[in-house]
Amino acid sequence: MTVLTASISQTIKERFTRIRTQTEKICSPLEPEDTVVQPMVDVSPPKWHMAHTTWFFEQFVLSTYLKDYRVFHPNYAFLFNSYYNSVGNRVQRAERSTLTRPPLRDVYAYRKYVNEHMEQLLQTIGEEQLEKLMPVLELGLQHEQQHQELLLTDIKYILSTNPLLPAYSQLTEVPSSQNPGKPVFLEVPGGVYRIGFQGEGFCFDNELGVHEVLLSDFSIMNRLVTNAEYLEFMQDGAYSDFRFWLDEGLAMVRSANLKAPLYWLEQEGEWYQYTLHGLRKIDPHKPVSHISFYEAQAYAAWSGKRLLTEFEWEAAAQVYPPATGNFQESGVYEPMAAPNGKGMQQLYGDAWEWTYSAYHPYPGFSTAAGALGEYNGKFMINQMVLRGGSCATPENHIRTSYRNFFHPDKRWQFTGIRLAQ
Amino acid sequence: MTVLTASISQTIKERFTRIRTQTEKICSPLEPEDTVVQPMVDVSPPKWHMAHTTWFFEQFVLSTYLKDYRVFHPNYAFLFNSYYNSVGNRVQRAERSTLTRPPLRDVYAYRKYVNEHMEQLLQTIGEEQLEKLMPVLELGLQHEQQHQELLLTDIKYILSTNPLLPAYSQLTEVPSSQNPGKPVFLEVPGGVYRIGFQGEGFCFDNELGVHEVLLSDFSIMNRLVTNAEYLEFMQDGAYSDFRFWLDEGLAMVRSANLKAPLYWLEQEGEWYQYTLHGLRKIDPHKPVSHISFYEAQAYAAWSGKRLLTEFEWEAAAQVYPPATGNFQESGVYEPMAAPNGKGMQQLYGDAWEWTYSAYHPYPGFSTAAGALGEYNGKFMINQMVLRGGSCATPENHIRTSYRNFFHPDKRWQFTGIRLAQ
Amino acid sequence: MTVLTASISQTIKERFTRIRTQTEKICSPLEPEDTVVQPMVDVSPPKWHMAHTTWFFEQFVLSTYLKDYRVFHPNYAFLFNSYYNSVGNRVQRAERSTLTRPPLRDVYAYRKYVNEHMEQLLQTIGEEQLEKLMPVLELGLQHEQQHQELLLTDIKYILSTNPLLPAYSQLTEVPSSQNPGKPVFLEVPGGVYRIGFQGEGFCFDNELGVHEVLLSDFSIMNRLVTNAEYLEFMQDGAYSDFRFWLDEGLAMVRSANLKAPLYWLEQEGEWYQYTLHGLRKIDPHKPVSHISFYEAQAYAAWSGKRLLTEFEWEAAAQVYPPATGNFQESGVYEPMAAPNGKGMQQLYGDAWEWTYSAYHPYPGFSTAAGALGEYNGKFMINQMVLRGGSCATPENHIRTSYRNFFHPDKRWQFTGIRLAQ
Amino acid sequence: MTVLTASISQTIKERFTRIRTQTEKICSPLEPEDTVVQPMVDVSPPKWHMAHTTWFFEQFVLSTYLKDYRVFHPNYAFLFNSYYNSVGNRVQRAERSTLTRPPLRDVYAYRKYVNEHMEQLLQTIGEEQLEKLMPVLELGLQHEQQHQELLLTDIKYILSTNPLLPAYSQLTEVPSSQNPGKPVFLEVPGGVYRIGFQGEGFCFDNELGVHEVLLSDFSIMNRLVTNAEYLEFMQDGAYSDFRFWLDEGLAMVRSANLKAPLYWLEQEGEWYQYTLHGLRKIDPHKPVSHISFYEAQAYAAWSGKRLLTEFEWEAAAQVYPPATGNFQESGVYEPMAAPNGKGMQQLYGDAWEWTYSAYHPYPGFSTAAGALGEYNGKFMINQMVLRGGSCATPENHIRTSYRNFFHPDKRWQFTGIRLAQ
Repeated sequence: MTVLTASISQTIKERFTRIRTQTEKICSPLEPEDTVVQPMVDVSPPKWHMAHTTWFFEQFVLSTYLKDYRVFHPNYAFLFNSYYNSVGNRVQRAERSTLTRPPLRDVYAYRKYVNEHMEQLLQTIGEEQLEKLMPVLELGLQHEQQHQELLLTDIKYILSTNPLLPAYSQLTEVPSSQNPGKPVFLEVPGGVYRIGFQGEGFCFDNELGVHEVLLSDFSIMNRLVTNAEYLEFMQDGAYSDFRFWLDEGLAMVRSANLKAPLYWLEQEGEWYQYTLHGLRKIDPHKPVSHISFYEAQAYAAWSGKRLLTEFEWEAAAQVYPPATGNFQESGVYEPMAAPNGKGMQQLYGDAWEWTYSAYHPYPGFSTAAGALGEYNGKFMINQMVLRGGSCATPENHIRTSYRNFFHPDKRWQFTGIRLAQ
Repeated sequence: MTVLTASISQTIKERFTRIRTQTEKICSPLEPEDTVVQPMVDVSPPKWHMAHTTWFFEQFVLSTYLKDYRVFHPNYAFLFNSYYNSVGNRVQRAERSTLTRPPLRDVYAYRKYVNEHMEQLLQTIGEEQLEKLMPVLELGLQHEQQHQELLLTDIKYILSTNPLLPAYSQLTEVPSSQNPGKPVFLEVPGGVYRIGFQGEGFCFDNELGVHEVLLSDFSIMNRLVTNAEYLEFMQDGAYSDFRFWLDEGLAMVRSANLKAPLYWLEQEGEWYQYTLHGLRKIDPHKPVSHISFYEAQAYAAWSGKRLLTEFEWEAAAQVYPPATGNFQESGVYEPMAAPNGKGMQQLYGDAWEWTYSAYHPYPGFSTAAGALGEYNGKFMINQMVLRGGSCATPENHIRTSYRNFFHPDKRWQFTGIRLAQ
Repeated sequence: MTVLTASISQTIKERFTRIRTQTEKICSPLEPEDTVVQPMVDVSPPKWHMAHTTWFFEQFVLSTYLKDYRVFHPNYAFLFNSYYNSVGNRVQRAERSTLTRPPLRDVYAYRKYVNEHMEQLLQTIGEEQLEKLMPVLELGLQHEQQHQELLLTDIKYILSTNPLLPAYSQLTEVPSSQNPGKPVFLEVPGGVYRIGFQGEGFCFDNELGVHEVLLSDFSIMNRLVTNAEYLEFMQDGAYSDFRFWLDEGLAMVRSANLKAPLYWLEQEGEWYQYTLHGLRKIDPHKPVSHISFYEAQAYAAWSGKRLLTEFEWEAAAQVYPPATGNFQESGVYEPMAAPNGKGMQQLYGDAWEWTYSAYHPYPGFSTAAGALGEYNGKFMINQMVLRGGSCATPENHIRTSYRNFFHPDKRWQFTGIRLAQ
Repeated sequence: MTVLTASISQTIKERFTRIRTQTEKICSPLEPEDTVVQPMVDVSPPKWHMAHTTWFFEQFVLSTYLKDYRVFHPNYAFLFNSYYNSVGNRVQRAERSTLTRPPLRDVYAYRKYVNEHMEQLLQTIGEEQLEKLMPVLELGLQHEQQHQELLLTDIKYILSTNPLLPAYSQLTEVPSSQNPGKPVFLEVPGGVYRIGFQGEGFCFDNELGVHEVLLSDFSIMNRLVTNAEYLEFMQDGAYSDFRFWLDEGLAMVRSANLKAPLYWLEQEGEWYQYTLHGLRKIDPHKPVSHISFYEAQAYAAWSGKRLLTEFEWEAAAQVYPPATGNFQESGVYEPMAAPNGKGMQQLYGDAWEWTYSAYHPYPGFSTAAGALGEYNGKFMINQMVLRGGSCATPENHIRTSYRNFFHPDKRWQFTGIRLAQ
């Protein structure tokens, strides 16, 4: 093993530790009871997230690369596999709240055990092995970051069902919020754009299959739609005006009797919003979030504009300088108001942007061999692409070609709106 | 306050403390996560049971009888009211698992706070007031004992859904089990019997309305049906033989694909049973339990006998000397085998006995004024009466006129079979 | 064959023809499309009723008693068996609307074919055979009369779902309606009553097991509760007042947002009722009908009275002279107002009277051998007994010991209220 | 009115009559009962189809263009509007089987009435008016042709639920079927293609927004996948092999326990298929049909190929000469075997081809003003595009740019597979 490798492995170890520690930091304000319930099937219990991300390293790294590794517990693969059919049977998604045992402290012990063995592995691994290991290790860390975002959104949902509406964390200082001003539409010239991951380093398989697309001229709103703008839509009666809605969107809005984004509450004529920092008055300048694709699309129709496609979004992100907003690292788990100005804002962070693109494979997409081939491909139907990350995304996790995806009726993620015309 | 009262109040205080402590003892083996989940709507989270029984004393005793009493927390009435419409809004039954907060330690603090104030009340209350208070206090204690039984059956259900099948408590010594021998049918002469509560002391309102019923001669099995006997029924193919089943029983058995009592598992040709003491091989001599009314009735039809009515059961219990079995106090949370012999056995304890009587009001039944009038009357439809208590019932809680009741498809209580002919 | 038999068989033939013809008369105003739909699972398509009652004679009479009888069509047993497991597989209840074929004219041909063979059988059968045949033949006719009532209530439900609210038949003359006056409560002395069928002739198996019951003194309302009286209950806000309702009744009323009996419509502040004779204004003097047991019970609780048990009803019917109301034969398919007076009224006809008795077997009840043993016994759970017949019941079909039964939430039969105290 | 116009109007009248008559010809083998049921929500009763297509002309043509036109019946707009919110309330889709009235003969009278008034209109209309009218009239005819296809697929579904499996029509002569030989993959060069309707005459709004797309080289199978090829997939255990399935496809296959295309039945080891011409043995040479998108995609994955996008399909159809198969006009309502050969086959007719393209708006798509703007746009979510028409499509109804669309789980249309690589 050369000096170089030692230093690389040191860097990796530090990164490993930093990301793994962050997961635990996210869970530290929780009561054990918070970590086991599953109020809807999309939400996973936080304890499960913590164990599942750990199992990922045990299953795909330690069991293969660490000699004589013994799994922490023979049943944990069954308990904490998420959806990898290749790796065997597992607890069904809808039944994760049955896992009252192992108790939280055992899951922490599991994390410690795997962390220690990972450190041992990284200490002792040869250069050649490290090279083979690196993609899986990197995937494990990116995977853990994805679960960090899910942890925050799932915790928010869990606590929001509690009649006491408890805050997850107190903000010592409430950041002030400025008026971002009228929206501006920035032009993007038509032409051929290269789409997909083209850089160095890590990307998910769904970003691969770089290909060219031909776009017409279009213009893109310079920031996200604000709460104040969305309130206008609500106050104009748009939730009950069929003209703006896709048919299945209208059916959802009617059957669930929706009148506002998720987490919004009206009390004595005033709108409030449950946030991870407690119930707070709606801030008119902040981006609207926790809306479905249907609501995003209806808002666009109401305003006489339209949503972007994912290709237009990526083209605009290539044309304009990166414009970042609020990320997980700030500890403020809400989208923040854009600065007042006419330049491009909030392309990254704050709120995921619904696009009018189905989550389908890029030309030439192929799934990897083995279990990790189940990572993305099998979900490529019935979901819409979202771009740009949110206030719950780690800043170093997002990139221009990153494709997130949810069903068009989902509202529990930090999802917002950017318009095109 | 006279000396006499002091001593009465001392007795009451001791009884109060004993029963309240027992509830906590039942919960002591649980992890916090065990106390919050609700795997089916019939099951309540243990934390909820602990808080609800405490709220009962706060709501119906302390708020009325203790001067200047301040409730522990202004929201707890909303959180922990079970079904008393008169007392205001409340968390819906199906949503009790949303209560991850207050955390378990707060619920223990709540119990301590209410206990201390109850003690203070009993220390200082005048004789006249005590007399008025006594019926409500007694109801609160009986109510808590009912919830002790539910705690045990709900804990059993919760842990049974966990893929690890954890034991709730270890038995240091497994009680030996004898063969109770062939069943004997004991005669009960026809005639007029007085039904309902006729003694001193406490009873529930559903036992009131003492009235006479005219019965024909019948005979009653001297013990509960055993696992071995029930296995014969299973092995005879009775679960799929329509001739023995009520139509809605057959529909349930078919749609849920039932082939055995709840908690029974077949592994490599051998039958096991999940118990609060872990997974154990079926003991042929013990009473079968965790069966629905439908299964009890089908068993009776298959064996050419029938179930008793609740009036026949009560008449037999008047005619024969009390014959008790296993109760909660033993710490063995399973029905136990009857002794070998021809006398009446297991009338009380071991397993509740399904009767072919609907849970309806007795003639002259009337509900009390106020919230406590909602205790029993409003459930008098669609349920069947069970008699005699079970291994989860406190021994001093049961009596001849006691009427338990469940829907005919329910299986998570310790429910068994006694035949008549 | 003796002369006597010839004349008996003549009488039987006439009775057979009369009842069979009446079924067709009931169906004559229907369009073919009316006869095939099944808007809820409780309702059967009229075409199915017509074929099923015919199959009953083919299956249980002709196939056994008529030499060389060839069934009309080899598949009809599969299509038109209702619930007799003993007789083989069948179209499931919920799928009866799949039977668009055979077309209506084939079902009429089926009826004609079976009628002709039945006539042939009755012409040629020997005395001894006739004696054996008689009970099954009689059961077939009683069965057909039961289906006549179901035809009328099912047709009413089917046509009521049509947005055009078509009338089934026009009344040339609308019967005038008098005010029956204030209700009177008539006394019935306590004591031992013999319950069950005790006469000559036919009864269903569920009336057998004659037995004595001991009743206390009670008094019984001299007529059915009227629409005007029920409107008071509605206008008093009773549908949303939890105090009057059984818990499961309240749940039904809330989840279905019930505010009135089935078929009631409010238009511009006025209440109307869909009837088989079209949409008509509520007549205040007529008995309320199309209510569930839950509504009957809540009405009783609201009025400070109670419902009868089935034993009390039968005792009252033994004590008071028979008091009949409106039956199927009148062609007016609505309950009619009782005459003004203090005597007993409407014990028979007009509307079935919900009792607070579960539909359970009488002591000594046993099911017959063979398929006909499935007639009643397997339904003896979760249903409540109704007594006295309705405006859709043939007059000669009802008797004192007759037990009808429905689940407590059902509202599509002509069901009403009589109170006790 | 000039002579020219008279002749145009004559042509239109003939076309109108031909298409309207064809609808009635399709319905002529049906019993009235067949025309009213709705065995699943996607299927509409044939009587409803006949009335709805008629209402379309009444609502959008006669009420606007024919002076003093009186609607046939004031309630029919409510009964027979499909989904046009702009035009008012209507019977909900799931409740179309409530329309037992108006009876079938009234719907035929309605058709006659509207036809006669349409003829009168076309006889008398001025040139200028005719020009304005033409697009709506054309849309009405195209709309009626769409419903002709739905009539055939809905009738097939309705009759297939009947236990007797009646044939809709007898084929006097069963067309012989040749082996189409091994599939050949034909090349399509990459480059920029113009997508969308570019010709003269009619198209739907969803084909508008002609735009260029950039495609890579690909090759396309020269014919549809056959039953024999699909059987191989089945016999290879692919229905239970998770590796080939999208996750939601696998969930559907498992929960519905699917093992074969819709309408396939296994009897004594032999596969049969319910067709509109009765139950028939599977013909190995014919194209597989009645499969969901999920099954098409899994078949492609299993065979190591992929599905086309809709853009690739349209490019291939521009490159290769039109290759037509079996259409509605033949009266044989099944896909037919392709001729043996290496050229392009079956691009049009036989079976709709699932593409891996979401049904989304083309760039620049906009909905028309008024009710007809609801025609297509509001369905542009959660559905996949199908191309090429089927054996139930009228031959003159299909074209290169035609976009059909269904949810990926739907199987009751004539849907098949063509592969790309």
